[in-house]
Amino acid sequence: MTDAPRGTAPHPRLHVPIHLRWGDLDAFNHVNNASMLKLLEEVRVRAFWRPGVEEEAPPTAVLDSGIDAGTLTLIARQEIEYLRPVPYQRNPLDVQLWFGKIGGSSIEVCYEVFSPPSSGARMSEPGDRGAAAMQQELYARASAVVVMVDAATGRPVRLTDEQRSAWTPYLGPPVVYAHRR
Amino acid sequence: MTDAPRGTAPHPRLHVPIHLRWGDLDAFNHVNNASMLKLLEEVRVRAFWRPGVEEEAPPTAVLDSGIDAGTLTLIARQEIEYLRPVPYQRNPLDVQLWFGKIGGSSIEVCYEVFSPPSSGARMSEPGDRGAAAMQQELYARASAVVVMVDAATGRPVRLTDEQRSAWTPYLGPPVVYAHRR
Amino acid sequence: MTDAPRGTAPHPRLHVPIHLRWGDLDAFNHVNNASMLKLLEEVRVRAFWRPGVEEEAPPTAVLDSGIDAGTLTLIARQEIEYLRPVPYQRNPLDVQLWFGKIGGSSIEVCYEVFSPPSSGARMSEPGDRGAAAMQQELYARASAVVVMVDAATGRPVRLTDEQRSAWTPYLGPPVVYAHRR
Amino acid sequence: MTDAPRGTAPHPRLHVPIHLRWGDLDAFNHVNNASMLKLLEEVRVRAFWRPGVEEEAPPTAVLDSGIDAGTLTLIARQEIEYLRPVPYQRNPLDVQLWFGKIGGSSIEVCYEVFSPPSSGARMSEPGDRGAAAMQQELYARASAVVVMVDAATGRPVRLTDEQRSAWTPYLGPPVVYAHRR
Repeated sequence: MTDAPRGTAPHPRLHVPIHLRWGDLDAFNHVNNASMLKLLEEVRVRAFWRPGVEEEAPPTAVLDSGIDAGTLTLIARQEIEYLRPVPYQRNPLDVQLWFGKIGGSSIEVCYEVFSPPSSGARMSEPGDRGAAAMQQELYARASAVVVMVDAATGRPVRLTDEQRSAWTPYLGPPVVYAHRR
Repeated sequence: MTDAPRGTAPHPRLHVPIHLRWGDLDAFNHVNNASMLKLLEEVRVRAFWRPGVEEEAPPTAVLDSGIDAGTLTLIARQEIEYLRPVPYQRNPLDVQLWFGKIGGSSIEVCYEVFSPPSSGARMSEPGDRGAAAMQQELYARASAVVVMVDAATGRPVRLTDEQRSAWTPYLGPPVVYAHRR
Repeated sequence: MTDAPRGTAPHPRLHVPIHLRWGDLDAFNHVNNASMLKLLEEVRVRAFWRPGVEEEAPPTAVLDSGIDAGTLTLIARQEIEYLRPVPYQRNPLDVQLWFGKIGGSSIEVCYEVFSPPSSGARMSEPGDRGAAAMQQELYARASAVVVMVDAATGRPVRLTDEQRSAWTPYLGPPVVYAHRR
Repeated sequence: MTDAPRGTAPHPRLHVPIHLRWGDLDAFNHVNNASMLKLLEEVRVRAFWRPGVEEEAPPTAVLDSGIDAGTLTLIARQEIEYLRPVPYQRNPLDVQLWFGKIGGSSIEVCYEVFSPPSSGARMSEPGDRGAAAMQQELYARASAVVVMVDAATGRPVRLTDEQRSAWTPYLGPPVVYAHRR
């Protein structure tokens, strides 16, 4: 997991590698539409939850979550456009994440799901790295609104200063959906 | 599964009963956000796929789907707003479905996910049926754009006349999302 | 759900109807091996957990479970033989359940997973009910050892008298596995 | 993924690292019993299926599987003992795999599921590596009988010479279950 910007995006994105499982496929032999949301859920957990002992995490991982924390992170809405069928593959997908909005007690998390970055091992020209990066396929665009909620009362909880300062560097434009009505 | 309109909706909706599984819950002890899309997937299968021998299905079940059919039904986009946490319960949820749009080779499927209709057993007034129907909780609103695709070529396939005439009675207004940006 | 014995089994079994979901299939287009255990989990929940308001349950449903109960039901071991691939179907599978053992703080739950009982609608002879029952396919045999555990201490908890008396009528011989080494 | 023996096991084992997902937890807040079989399924895929372009795999990955291959790998039986609840964690579990039997057209795959190997970073004594390895928790023991089946006819297919020679180095004793009846 790296926090350096990559590709042509004009704003910083977090890159979270996520392994597929063959069990994410459905009977049509590609990653199921609901499985894709499971992948994005795991991306959020790895991006936002504090790491345990001997675990590494990106600088955005400042949430005391899990069921024992006083604050739950609830999903209020989700939107996703599936651009290409995703086949099973061993190398982790490159899920890129940023914030479309950082509100009072909620955030809008934006994602683009890409195929694994090529190792470039097959390229004839060593300087041709940009072209290799270009070869990544964009599988899906998505966004989720996550609300911080008091576990006891169910009421929204304001973001902390630590959360704002950890997340603001990844603030960017919201996802533009091509097929909204 | 009944195809009669119910409640105050001014347009006909299909009512598809769907059983939860305890395994749909996540560690927060309510139905997981991605599990909700699995439920809506099953609703589509039961609403649209032709029944087998000794099976019953609503009049909208005119799709020769499954992996052996020449046509695949792919999800192009989905949108969902989660309004209330959904607890485990034995009685089937009442998922109401209609079409927001019937296009050339795609459809927009709209959903409202309700708690089970009350049996009315606890009501003091026997004539108070309308109030019982009112007690159903609305858990989520969602929509999905489904595209018919040729399994061999991957290209869109036009809806058949049979599909149009089976689905048009359930055409209604698209879902209005409260929290779109 | 009925608690009457059925078929040729010499001991009473609980019959729990469980709906498949198309999402239970994997890329081989039949019910996935792990999904089968999700079905058996749901069978346990419906067989053993106390019903809520307006919900029905069999006489074996005497467990105060769920996360808020003081007692957890943990799975200690499972064993399953898959006899035939299970295709998607709308009608609920007929999962038959009994107890192979009722111990001090644990139970062995035994299952046979059958295709739905035929309605008999296609039979030429009205009196030919036995033959219809014969047509049910046996998809899988399984068993699970479930231990009652104190949620706070993690230590085993003894079965209550209510549990013993509710479950003893369904005590039967353990599953005989054909392919154990 | 390494194919070197490790720990005190007297026979070679394949070590397959598998990442948990938070979604593998159930409402009891630990890895669900059926999710564990999904993990073992993914271990099989990574251990046995031929890799694609730019993908790495262990020497046991000689199966032309996937839905397009002429041969399906079906699970005939599974057995598993859950020894400790598995909490969510970021580092991949260390699933150790070997063969209990290599038959004519089937194999018995044996597993032990361990917590991630400690990095040893917190140890005061640099030479204390063995103790660190000892700290790995054993979460589960399992085995699965996998049968090679002709996709068209459904009949068993004999193992190839390539499969036998790739797998025989990992032949070992079958799992000894502590709680079989």
